[in-house]
Amino acid sequence: MTKPFQPPKRLLMGPGPSDVHHRVLSAMARPTLGHLDPAFVGMMDEVKSMLQEAFFTANALTLPISGPGSAGMEACFVNLVEPGDTVVVCVNGVFGGRMRENVERCGARAVVVENDWGTPVDPDKVEAALKANPGVKALAFVHAETSTGVESPAGDLCALAREHGALSIVDTVTSLAGIPVLVDHWGADAVYSGSQKCLSCPPGLSPLTFSDRAAETLKSRKTKVQSWFLDLTLLTAYWGGGAKRTYHHTAPVNALYGLHESLVMLHEEGIEHSWTRHAMMHQALRAGLEAMGLSLLVAEGARLPQLNAVVVPDGIDEAQVRSVLLTTHGLEIGAGLGALAGKVWRIGLMGQSATPRHVASCLGALESALAAQGFKLSAGAGAAAANRLLLI
Amino acid sequence: MTKPFQPPKRLLMGPGPSDVHHRVLSAMARPTLGHLDPAFVGMMDEVKSMLQEAFFTANALTLPISGPGSAGMEACFVNLVEPGDTVVVCVNGVFGGRMRENVERCGARAVVVENDWGTPVDPDKVEAALKANPGVKALAFVHAETSTGVESPAGDLCALAREHGALSIVDTVTSLAGIPVLVDHWGADAVYSGSQKCLSCPPGLSPLTFSDRAAETLKSRKTKVQSWFLDLTLLTAYWGGGAKRTYHHTAPVNALYGLHESLVMLHEEGIEHSWTRHAMMHQALRAGLEAMGLSLLVAEGARLPQLNAVVVPDGIDEAQVRSVLLTTHGLEIGAGLGALAGKVWRIGLMGQSATPRHVASCLGALESALAAQGFKLSAGAGAAAANRLLLI
Repeated sequence: MTKPFQPPKRLLMGPGPSDVHHRVLSAMARPTLGHLDPAFVGMMDEVKSMLQEAFFTANALTLPISGPGSAGMEACFVNLVEPGDTVVVCVNGVFGGRMRENVERCGARAVVVENDWGTPVDPDKVEAALKANPGVKALAFVHAETSTGVESPAGDLCALAREHGALSIVDTVTSLAGIPVLVDHWGADAVYSGSQKCLSCPPGLSPLTFSDRAAETLKSRKTKVQSWFLDLTLLTAYWGGGAKRTYHHTAPVNALYGLHESLVMLHEEGIEHSWTRHAMMHQALRAGLEAMGLSLLVAEGARLPQLNAVVVPDGIDEAQVRSVLLTTHGLEIGAGLGALAGKVWRIGLMGQSATPRHVASCLGALESALAAQGFKLSAGAGAAAANRLLLI
Repeated sequence: MTKPFQPPKRLLMGPGPSDVHHRVLSAMARPTLGHLDPAFVGMMDEVKSMLQEAFFTANALTLPISGPGSAGMEACFVNLVEPGDTVVVCVNGVFGGRMRENVERCGARAVVVENDWGTPVDPDKVEAALKANPGVKALAFVHAETSTGVESPAGDLCALAREHGALSIVDTVTSLAGIPVLVDHWGADAVYSGSQKCLSCPPGLSPLTFSDRAAETLKSRKTKVQSWFLDLTLLTAYWGGGAKRTYHHTAPVNALYGLHESLVMLHEEGIEHSWTRHAMMHQALRAGLEAMGLSLLVAEGARLPQLNAVVVPDGIDEAQVRSVLLTTHGLEIGAGLGALAGKVWRIGLMGQSATPRHVASCLGALESALAAQGFKLSAGAGAAAANRLLLI
């Protein structure tokens, strides 16, 4: 007979989920309320306003989608893109490729702008694609590519979209709360994120925000949104309806308790402080990795502090290293995805996993796993990291 | 500044969510694991096999969709229905209407079989519709209409579908674990449910199962599934892939801990015992309501034990009664939906909310709220209910 499940103790330093603070876990264990209970509805309003704060936006249409980040991505495309539309999609990793899938499944045409994995989206290429395809409905790109650890210039890309009369659709799954996501300042139109990265909630919710321009586009659609579940016109009648809400689906009540608590914690810390913390931990990790003789995939300047793609040295069995980290040290790091499978490790420093303890544990465990495979280490990775932390 | 959210104490006796056992709440508060962690993957396998047990099926394609029941509904339609198909949709309440929406948003034609709200789907009408529309792709109906409290004859309807070469798509959101859901015995093809009803989990997950015939239909599609997020071919590579799983989306780890625990509890109780418990509590509630002078909307024989639609007596302000129940007694019951708005209350006895304490609390609170509006009560509803419990 199946027994209750007791998860082993882990330090989560992969590409997400990140470690969840016990305050958030406790919040999720509070008694379930009805999804139309006035007390719950009051909490929803707070979630909405804290998400506006986290996204740096005044957008009225701001809410968490009741599904993981990929549901948030799909919500953006199905609500804004209609059959026959053309969308410029920037692909420089796995998640750009997924955007392309979304566009095509909406019956629209995807014009793909390719950039090498591990490099940012090049605005010049995007401009050329926009010029070559007049009447483009939207420009879609990933701000922080989780598969490579690259940041793309979101502000520049959103500005280009606007110049060419296109909406911008921006994936901030891995960026929100880890690096600046400035929705109104960028002039971004449709932006989605995930709960399980730098917000340090369990996975399952996707914060989303639409500019007034995007909301207008939604209103003036010629066809019905192909997804009932993700139809934002129906969703806003529930989330944005004030006291008089119209039932749509049953909101994931306890998951929303968790998101609420994580947003309260973000507010207490201050989002700018959260950015700084992520940057500091990244510098410490980087110093330690380099002292060890390892290198990062991404060039300085485009590196995400919260997602570090580390090049696997020649002759090292990368899966064995991850396995030792997991089973001996209880420490999870990520494998490479797609074109980078077997070539990189992905070390996450997201949310509650961006602490000195995580950096030191990871460096120590990595040293020991590499040494076991005969990798010649320079000494003192931990010291280099500690030194770096003192310097900042 | 926003503070942590502390939900008020409630007894949940609406149409779902139902009360969640502290074992399930505690399970959800366990530390988050990575969604590809071997320990988590082992737990996923257990969830899958316990779902097969709950659905009384050997279907290989059995998994929880990472979204609420409406995402499970949409998963069935988008995976099986292609543009140009015809689907017979039975409408006898809100959720049948939502099925129709789903069919149309797949670019298919819905042939609607209407039955009065509060009555079951009539197999003769369905047979006529199937005969009048040769080549129908699927027959869709709601086993347990949450908006009215009616059970429809699932076995008969699935058999009709099969006779006419159509797939059956069955909503068991409110029925699973409350009354028999016998997927293989019925010969049902695509069946979905929800976590927050008789399974007594928080909302947010939708158990789903596809027969081999449905899985074959999926394989032989001419077009891509319009939803990437709900594409079951991609989902099964993650859920059904054994040790070698292909990443699709990030599973809602902690929500799945909760579902796992609720399924362990169901197994411990025995699902047949759970059905009996729901039936007993319904009889007790019914006896009490009738002793009070109230009546149920649905005729005996088609009544769902877990969802009791109670006719609002003339001259009673139904919203005021619900408000008194909620604010004075901390007890949530549901309002009527759609055509039944203002005409019925919906009293749920689902999962952990199907206990003598819930029945007695509800009857007592209802008596007091009705008396406050001058409703002439027959004495002794609580006694009638207690008596009934002894009798069974």
